[in-house]
Amino acid sequence: MKIYDFEGFPNPARVRIALAEKGATDKMQFVHVDVLKGEHRLPGFLAMNPNATVPVLELGDGTTISECTAITEYIDHAFDGISLTGTTAKDRAVIHMMQCRAEQGVMDAVGTYFHHATPGLGALELYQNKEWGLKQRERAIAGMRYFDSVLATQPFAAGQHFSVADITLFVGLNFADFAKIELPADLPHLKAWRARMAQRPSMGG
Amino acid sequence: MKIYDFEGFPNPARVRIALAEKGATDKMQFVHVDVLKGEHRLPGFLAMNPNATVPVLELGDGTTISECTAITEYIDHAFDGISLTGTTAKDRAVIHMMQCRAEQGVMDAVGTYFHHATPGLGALELYQNKEWGLKQRERAIAGMRYFDSVLATQPFAAGQHFSVADITLFVGLNFADFAKIELPADLPHLKAWRARMAQRPSMGG
Repeated sequence: MKIYDFEGFPNPARVRIALAEKGATDKMQFVHVDVLKGEHRLPGFLAMNPNATVPVLELGDGTTISECTAITEYIDHAFDGISLTGTTAKDRAVIHMMQCRAEQGVMDAVGTYFHHATPGLGALELYQNKEWGLKQRERAIAGMRYFDSVLATQPFAAGQHFSVADITLFVGLNFADFAKIELPADLPHLKAWRARMAQRPSMGG
Repeated sequence: MKIYDFEGFPNPARVRIALAEKGATDKMQFVHVDVLKGEHRLPGFLAMNPNATVPVLELGDGTTISECTAITEYIDHAFDGISLTGTTAKDRAVIHMMQCRAEQGVMDAVGTYFHHATPGLGALELYQNKEWGLKQRERAIAGMRYFDSVLATQPFAAGQHFSVADITLFVGLNFADFAKIELPADLPHLKAWRARMAQRPSMGG
C-alpha cells in the first residue's frame, strides 16, 4: 500500500499518527507529492483525488482513498492494535461526533484562516476571502475553548479512551501554532491534555 | 431513544432516511425543535448540542449525539438491516470518502450558499458573507458535475451498493432545489440516479 503525501503538512500528519498508533507505519510506502510545486494539481494526481489534496491512500488493488477520516477509517479496520474509531455503536457515534467537532471547529477553521487571511501557500492560493478567513480564526479559538471545557471532565477528546478525535485536535493545535493563532492562556485543561499527547511516541514523544 | 429535529429540514431528512432504510423509524420518539423561533439557541438545547444544530440523537442513557455522520454511524451499527456505512475496511473507507465528498461538495456547499448569499433564515442569520456564499454555489455545481461523472460508471454514489453517501447526495440535491440552485441540464447520470433514488420508500417513493 502507498500513501501519497507531504511530510509535515497537517492532514498527512493525522494519517501518519494513526498508522504509528496501529503499529502499521512499515506497511506503507510513502510517495512524496511536491505540493509546493503544484504537483497535486497535475492530471496524474487529480486522477487519484479530484479534490487535489494530500494525503491519498492507494490500496493494493489500485483503489485510491482520500479524505483523512476515510483513510483513518481504513487504517483502523485493516490493522490490529488499539481501536481509534470505536467498536460499539455508541462509542463509534461519540468518537465520530468529537472528531467532527475537532475537524470543523479547530483543524479546518485554522486551515481556512491560513489559506484565506494570511499569505497561505503564496502563489498556490487561487482565491482568498480575507473576511471569511478572519471569521474562521474566531471559530478556531472558540473550538479551543470548547475542547478545554470538554477536557476538564474527561481525559481524552471523545471520553475515556484515545481516538481519532485526539489525533485531529492535536494536529489542529499544531497547525494553529504554524498559522500563528495563539492558544489562549486560560485553557489549562487543553494545555495539560496537549502535553500528555505530546508524550505519545506517535506524536513525537 | 429520541431525535430532536425539525421535519423537512435537510440534515434531519438525512437521519430520517437512514432510520427508514434500517426499518428503525418506530424505535425513535421525535421531538420538534422550533428552529424558526430560535429554540435551538436556548440553553436547554445548547446543553445537548453546543453547535446549535438539529438533529440530535438522545440515547436511553442520556448521551446526546449530534452531527449527521455520527448519528447515522450509530443508527447503522445499532439496528439490523442493510449496511449503510460498509462492513469491510475498504468499503468503509470508500463510503466515508464519497459521503464526505457529497457532504462538502454538495450538501454543505448548498447550505453555505443558502445561509450566506440568500436571505436564508432571515433574522436568524447572525453573520453573512455573500461573496463566500456565491463561491460555494459554484462549488455545489462542480460537486453535481463530479457526481454525474461518478454515476456514469456505477449505480450508487459509493459503488455497487446503496449507502449513506447516496442519502447525503440525494438530500443535498433537494436542498439545492429549495435554495434555487438549478441542476445543470447536461448531467444525465445524476438525474437518472436521482429518479431511481426517489423511488425508494425511505425517500418518499
